[in-house]
Amino acid sequence: MAGAQQRRVCFLLKVRADRLAEYRERHAAVWPDMLAALSAAGWRNYSLFLRDDGLLVGYLETADFAAAQAAMAASDVNARWQAEMVPFFEALDGAAPDAALYPLTEVFHLD
Amino acid sequence: MAGAQQRRVCFLLKVRADRLAEYRERHAAVWPDMLAALSAAGWRNYSLFLRDDGLLVGYLETADFAAAQAAMAASDVNARWQAEMVPFFEALDGAAPDAALYPLTEVFHLD
Repeated sequence: MAGAQQRRVCFLLKVRADRLAEYRERHAAVWPDMLAALSAAGWRNYSLFLRDDGLLVGYLETADFAAAQAAMAASDVNARWQAEMVPFFEALDGAAPDAALYPLTEVFHLD
Repeated sequence: MAGAQQRRVCFLLKVRADRLAEYRERHAAVWPDMLAALSAAGWRNYSLFLRDDGLLVGYLETADFAAAQAAMAASDVNARWQAEMVPFFEALDGAAPDAALYPLTEVFHLD
């Protein structure tokens, strides 16, 4: 999809207050094959930001977020990564973290 | 600062639940001189995302956020814009919205 219009996506999750340090450590050393899978699935300029209380903000750019999510959902390495991430999060109601990403509405943009 | 390394900044604010519709409308029509001031101050790829309950996420890229904030704080149009925005926000404790931007910690990035 070279040259496809990129869309901006922002989502929120909540990391458990007692797991913040370990969450940071894990994300400073994400598996290389997980990074490769994200890139192959079209996740670009992807950042995670953490507030001290565990509120987590995700931001990425991609041509089609539903397609980018589906491509990750079909990836073996993602299934292994998400299974290890589940215990870090609050309030997933049994979902994998990557199945609980609800994009917020973009209300302003300046290039 | 052409070619300067861009840093990613994420911040949160809270829009009053009873002012969400008007907040959206105002941000669909930001004054052109406010947009020009942001660009001149080095705010790049700047987006605002709104959750239904009023939680607002800001994301931007800039070479030096403190300098980018200071440049806006010195701008007349920003003073007028922020004065109009104050009533839209919760919990500013008397601060202007642009003086209440506390960057979250980036814990992960993939280009």
